[in-house]
Amino acid sequence: MSGEDAPPQQQKPEEQSKQEAKSSEEPKAAEPKQQQQEPKAEPQAETPAAAEATGAEKPSAAATASEEEVQFTYRALVLSGYGGYDKVKLQVKKGKPALKAGDVLVRVKACGLNFADLLGRQGLYDRLPSPPVTPGMECSGVVEAVGEEVTDRKVGDKVLVICRNGLWQEVVAVPTDHTFLMPEGMSFEEAAALLINYITAYMILFDFGNLRPNQSVLIHMAAGGVGIAATQLCKTVKDVTVFGTASASKHEVISQGGVTHPIDYRTRDYVEEIRKISPKGLDIVLDPLGGSDTNKGFNLLKPMGKLITYGAANVLTGPKKNLFAVAKSWYNHFSVNVQSLMNSNKAVCGFHLGYLDGEFELVAQVANKVLELYGQGKIKPRVDSTWHFEQVGDAMRRMQERNNVGKVILLPEPKKEEEKKEEPKKEEEKKEEKKDKKEEKKEEKKKEEPKKEEN
Amino acid sequence: MSGEDAPPQQQKPEEQSKQEAKSSEEPKAAEPKQQQQEPKAEPQAETPAAAEATGAEKPSAAATASEEEVQFTYRALVLSGYGGYDKVKLQVKKGKPALKAGDVLVRVKACGLNFADLLGRQGLYDRLPSPPVTPGMECSGVVEAVGEEVTDRKVGDKVLVICRNGLWQEVVAVPTDHTFLMPEGMSFEEAAALLINYITAYMILFDFGNLRPNQSVLIHMAAGGVGIAATQLCKTVKDVTVFGTASASKHEVISQGGVTHPIDYRTRDYVEEIRKISPKGLDIVLDPLGGSDTNKGFNLLKPMGKLITYGAANVLTGPKKNLFAVAKSWYNHFSVNVQSLMNSNKAVCGFHLGYLDGEFELVAQVANKVLELYGQGKIKPRVDSTWHFEQVGDAMRRMQERNNVGKVILLPEPKKEEEKKEEPKKEEEKKEEKKDKKEEKKEEKKKEEPKKEEN
Repeated sequence: MSGEDAPPQQQKPEEQSKQEAKSSEEPKAAEPKQQQQEPKAEPQAETPAAAEATGAEKPSAAATASEEEVQFTYRALVLSGYGGYDKVKLQVKKGKPALKAGDVLVRVKACGLNFADLLGRQGLYDRLPSPPVTPGMECSGVVEAVGEEVTDRKVGDKVLVICRNGLWQEVVAVPTDHTFLMPEGMSFEEAAALLINYITAYMILFDFGNLRPNQSVLIHMAAGGVGIAATQLCKTVKDVTVFGTASASKHEVISQGGVTHPIDYRTRDYVEEIRKISPKGLDIVLDPLGGSDTNKGFNLLKPMGKLITYGAANVLTGPKKNLFAVAKSWYNHFSVNVQSLMNSNKAVCGFHLGYLDGEFELVAQVANKVLELYGQGKIKPRVDSTWHFEQVGDAMRRMQERNNVGKVILLPEPKKEEEKKEEPKKEEEKKEEKKDKKEEKKEEKKKEEPKKEEN
Repeated sequence: MSGEDAPPQQQKPEEQSKQEAKSSEEPKAAEPKQQQQEPKAEPQAETPAAAEATGAEKPSAAATASEEEVQFTYRALVLSGYGGYDKVKLQVKKGKPALKAGDVLVRVKACGLNFADLLGRQGLYDRLPSPPVTPGMECSGVVEAVGEEVTDRKVGDKVLVICRNGLWQEVVAVPTDHTFLMPEGMSFEEAAALLINYITAYMILFDFGNLRPNQSVLIHMAAGGVGIAATQLCKTVKDVTVFGTASASKHEVISQGGVTHPIDYRTRDYVEEIRKISPKGLDIVLDPLGGSDTNKGFNLLKPMGKLITYGAANVLTGPKKNLFAVAKSWYNHFSVNVQSLMNSNKAVCGFHLGYLDGEFELVAQVANKVLELYGQGKIKPRVDSTWHFEQVGDAMRRMQERNNVGKVILLPEPKKEEEKKEEPKKEEEKKEEKKDKKEEKKEEKKKEEPKKEEN
């Protein structure tokens, strides 16, 4: 991403370390309540400048670096070093991102938060360059300028964007073939929630999984971004039985979304629950957890069954890298030889979209299929909550502590003064207010219990 | 199989060991030339009895054990102990196979020879019960009697049969759901060549492989039974590129069959050859070899590629179990952990039809699909050669030394006297007589060279 070349804003180490200390001692809050801290991390003086930049004039396609462009500033999130939630800082970058031939400049409206971003913050994702670096693999926005040789996009187009990293900033310069036109009726939040989760879910279910009618699928973290996407995609195939793990408070939502058998993995042994319902096992197990759950998933497969590992969420046990969890996950790392695969007629597949950047044509094909399904009303991303860049720490905590139901979205635009006095925006917050209070109590309780699959 | 319970005929150890010694010293002949030996292995006195049995009257469905049935005899091949080609003996079993409810009695016309039978003879296939046992997983024939509760088959139906073992005999009693009606125009030889090879090829290509248009596939032993089946099935999908390994003398046949790029693995490094044509690698690698070839296959995969191991032909280096080859194959046994699968976006699958007997419904579905494709003229088994039961050793040698192009078939009917003076039946023998002579020379040369992938 071009934005990474811009000089990162000077940081205030004293404030950082203070905040970090506080962050790790503090009890984990299910709902974000730290608005009063962000202004410290991000000096007030620069926020208005960034806000002004939002309204900057549209540059022409072939503009040369003018005084105005050099003076151009924009808000960006920057990972300053590996560690806890506070390591991602809001900064103001200077100088408009350079537009190469084939690039478009996009004014970003919403960004998606993904598990790889959480791993990246802890230094556990090798596709993210070393800090300081701007994370962000997906966003949505409006084309503000087009570079030479760009014929398929024009200024004003609303687009979804997918990139290896660097998208968590107000403006981005990206290759035009990494953008997709937003279908009619899609919101920017939905658009930022779509690509990574649905492309992942599509490829693991339909390419590796080869899902067909009457089959059974286990979806872990069924209330997460990929979980909800995979559930919706399973419903596009006739008579697929979906087993989904999630904490009990999320069961109503995931059942409505299409999970046939929701299982509370915190209070039940999911293997036993599945065996009760489906003694012969499952056709497909989607495994975003890693560690010992991979082995459990393999054993749950029927003959001709397929295990697809696409993550290592089990290594994320807290805000900072937990060497014990990493070691344990590696110790339990599933390894298999072909003889045992032959004797059991099983398949083991590994998927990570981040390692598919050499196959962008293939990824783009799947993106287009997913957008077609959206257009047909067969899939619809569920946005859990939206957070301004200032609140990125709380947004990450919400996902990492698995309190989200659907996608966690980041908004580049600054929080307005009146908004700061209220709670951060949350989808369906008002209508679910009563339910939320109940859930909060449950969630507090859960925090005391260790995660079942980690034991 | 019911036949296994019948008392195995007494053997003549002196003759066996003599024959064995001869068999292993003798230069390997591409064409069977040992007719004069078989009568020794199978006492003449019993052959006529077995031949008479062929014309025995049809028993009624609910017949009780009559004197006639007890006196009933039939020719059967029996694995007498693990070892070389001569360990499979022609015997005469007594007493008609018992027909349970749901069974049909089939007069066998032709049997298929499979790699698992070769492994079984050496004691390397754990799905074959301990000797003495009748091998044979597929055959074709005519229904001669139906047991109680059988409504879908009637006397006179021509059927294909698939079973775990026990089919290499003149008559077999099998569950009716293990039989499939032969389509119009199919010969008994084709029928005996179809099920195991085409079901295997279908499941590895379309279930695990998820083969789609424009993809590329590597087929090892492309002139073998599964190889030819897989090639034909690849041609049912649009624009599939097939790389096929086989010795040079077989290239013309496999090219005509649909192999896009035949590779002589004996004189070329197939990995290099494939990389020259397809630098990014392949979508699917079918691996019947095991050992170090599994690793080579894995490395040849593109992102989203699938390696499907379905055999261990590399352990078969000679007539008898080669402990060194077995150990080497195990030493090179491919093992993979999910992290490396994720980082490369690859899948590793293991398939063995012999271990799928608990999923017979699934296997039957695929059998019906394959028969449908035959009916549509999209597939046609290629019979390499047919051999009478007396010639089973030569038939096995032909396959084990990889001299076959297509399926090796066994015929239960005794060899006629006039036939014994001629060469054994060989498909297209006459029209390819000239070509054969050339090939023989080449094959003799090959025998001196060690197999490339074994080094």
